[in-house]
Amino acid sequence: MTSYAPLANPVFLQACLGQATRYTPVWLMRQAGRYLPEYRATRARAGSFMALATNVDFATEVTLQPLARYPLDAAILFSDILTVPDAMGLGLSFQSGEGPRFARPLQTEADIAALAVPDMDKLRYVFDAVTAIRRALQGRVPLIGFSGSPWTLACYMVEGGSSSDYRVVKTLLYARPDLMHRVLAVNADAVAAYLNAQIDAGAQAVMVFDSWGGVLADGAFQPFSLAYTARVLRQLQRHGPDGAVVPRIVFTKGGGLWLREMVSALPCDTLGVDWTLNLGAARAILAENARPADGAAASAIAPAALQGNLDPGVLFAPPEAIRAQVRAALDSFGPPSHADAARAGVAHIFNLGHGISQFTPPEHVAHLVDEVHGYSRTLRRA
Amino acid sequence: MTSYAPLANPVFLQACLGQATRYTPVWLMRQAGRYLPEYRATRARAGSFMALATNVDFATEVTLQPLARYPLDAAILFSDILTVPDAMGLGLSFQSGEGPRFARPLQTEADIAALAVPDMDKLRYVFDAVTAIRRALQGRVPLIGFSGSPWTLACYMVEGGSSSDYRVVKTLLYARPDLMHRVLAVNADAVAAYLNAQIDAGAQAVMVFDSWGGVLADGAFQPFSLAYTARVLRQLQRHGPDGAVVPRIVFTKGGGLWLREMVSALPCDTLGVDWTLNLGAARAILAENARPADGAAASAIAPAALQGNLDPGVLFAPPEAIRAQVRAALDSFGPPSHADAARAGVAHIFNLGHGISQFTPPEHVAHLVDEVHGYSRTLRRA
Repeated sequence: MTSYAPLANPVFLQACLGQATRYTPVWLMRQAGRYLPEYRATRARAGSFMALATNVDFATEVTLQPLARYPLDAAILFSDILTVPDAMGLGLSFQSGEGPRFARPLQTEADIAALAVPDMDKLRYVFDAVTAIRRALQGRVPLIGFSGSPWTLACYMVEGGSSSDYRVVKTLLYARPDLMHRVLAVNADAVAAYLNAQIDAGAQAVMVFDSWGGVLADGAFQPFSLAYTARVLRQLQRHGPDGAVVPRIVFTKGGGLWLREMVSALPCDTLGVDWTLNLGAARAILAENARPADGAAASAIAPAALQGNLDPGVLFAPPEAIRAQVRAALDSFGPPSHADAARAGVAHIFNLGHGISQFTPPEHVAHLVDEVHGYSRTLRRA
Repeated sequence: MTSYAPLANPVFLQACLGQATRYTPVWLMRQAGRYLPEYRATRARAGSFMALATNVDFATEVTLQPLARYPLDAAILFSDILTVPDAMGLGLSFQSGEGPRFARPLQTEADIAALAVPDMDKLRYVFDAVTAIRRALQGRVPLIGFSGSPWTLACYMVEGGSSSDYRVVKTLLYARPDLMHRVLAVNADAVAAYLNAQIDAGAQAVMVFDSWGGVLADGAFQPFSLAYTARVLRQLQRHGPDGAVVPRIVFTKGGGLWLREMVSALPCDTLGVDWTLNLGAARAILAENARPADGAAASAIAPAALQGNLDPGVLFAPPEAIRAQVRAALDSFGPPSHADAARAGVAHIFNLGHGISQFTPPEHVAHLVDEVHGYSRTLRRA
């Protein structure tokens, strides 16, 4: 077993588990990305997005770039959400300006019948990157591993790429739900194996991105997305090789109306929410299910933290407006729980409600992080 | 005052006001559109989308086309949602395959200071179309007039066209809320004048499309979209020239989390909802505010009906799957109110949760309409 430096900043992991913290931790979805000139330079050296994402050294380099600029409380593996279907043989590529394409999308019943959980050795480059990044972090902050949700992967696998209307995958869903369920079952088992291998490789928390759950209708989301995310979570190992609990986070973009159902159905620690939710109202829903503060909590897994939810569009405004919106989000969540409360409360991890835009001025992010840290400390002294 | 044939089918108007009906009325957003070969033929004859939308004869022809195919319970004016900003002088055009463009979007503080409610004479072609369509309908079904919401219009006016991230308009909103409020105030007063003129011209119901309300964050939706839709509604005349009540409908795509706030804030009769909402849960929220069945209701305006909410993607499935999903939506809404109930209940107008896709097979729509009419009659006999 690889041995790593001890973790200097556990605030993110504590908050994920609903524990009281000295301040509100913050990281940003897509924090290693195109808005950073150093990222664009590395990508230019790599030559292509796939070359960047599949090379351990490049992936390590870009994962650490935002941490050199901002005192973020977590790092997230730099990778693509479509690595798993690529390993299934669908043939991933990125056309410039067009997003991902699969050379062999699922088009026939035979394609779907042949689909299988891939050999995890084909994803070795991802696990190697996890280990390299964890080592390079030197215990500074924890490393988050991730995967797309079974439904989100299926959207790309059936559509063959991005879509504006999800016409092909919805046709399959409504016309042949049996085939849709088969794709999702294979995806769920593959994602579970993939995340467990990331945990083995050194990931200290794992996150499932249900990026397209919100395009489903009520009544379709529950059996076709939620149920399979739950199937992933039930198969995850609770502890890393070092014995530490590995928090699990689920983010469903556009899923706010189903928050109560997610709380009941998903054995995870933290729910990510987009900017359409009121954090205070969401917190009240989680609090209905709050885990006890005593040791009985160790085995139970129910969501005890919210992650989110600033509109990424706020980062286009001037610094003072950004700071005001950060304070408004923290105020909307409400007073932080105290460590000595009879029951542990619901914790908050600050994030955006979606990935950071490539057009964000990098200096604006510094204001966001500084205000989260500063103002959330003030709230704890109140 | 123009005199029209008496209305043969009042079911849609009755349901909009929360009254019990013999069956659930149905119409489809964008029912006159590209999925119909006869629409594409008329558009080809017109030469361009603008030529189609600004010509009274063409607009009348395409408005009536879906009624010739399906026994729909309402017609909706064929027009564009951007007619009002075009009349404000922003210079609307449609590039093929790219959607709407404004030649003179709002880019400077001076542009915004100069913005004013346009002379309604510039929109005479719309009102003439309303009158011509109303006459051509010969009282068969009621005619719905419509406008984009102040916020939705502002998105296009500031972005200059469609957007995937609303970066420009959100920058304005967060950086200069004072300027954003000025745009929205002018838009609201313009939209109110526009809808009142449509009512004078013969529209029997009016609908505000808040197509982009759902891209706003909680805390921004309320002051920047909801408040200005309410400002429109407060200025609307309650009755048409013939003395009939004119129901008002508001549809906010992606606004499901704010349904309770919409019920409180919007003086309208019907709320349109997209497919992410559970109709039964939404009905319960409206029922909290249900209007009394007696005469006291005449002056009060609170939402008493839901319009929606089938996923347009369902229409890609085979007929039997479409019919099953229609029944599921009607069942999700629950048992219809009875005319003799002590309090009028919440009524349902069947629709899609968004506009019909151009890729919809036209014969599939016939199955949807037939199943809504047939199954909803069955529910009333139960």
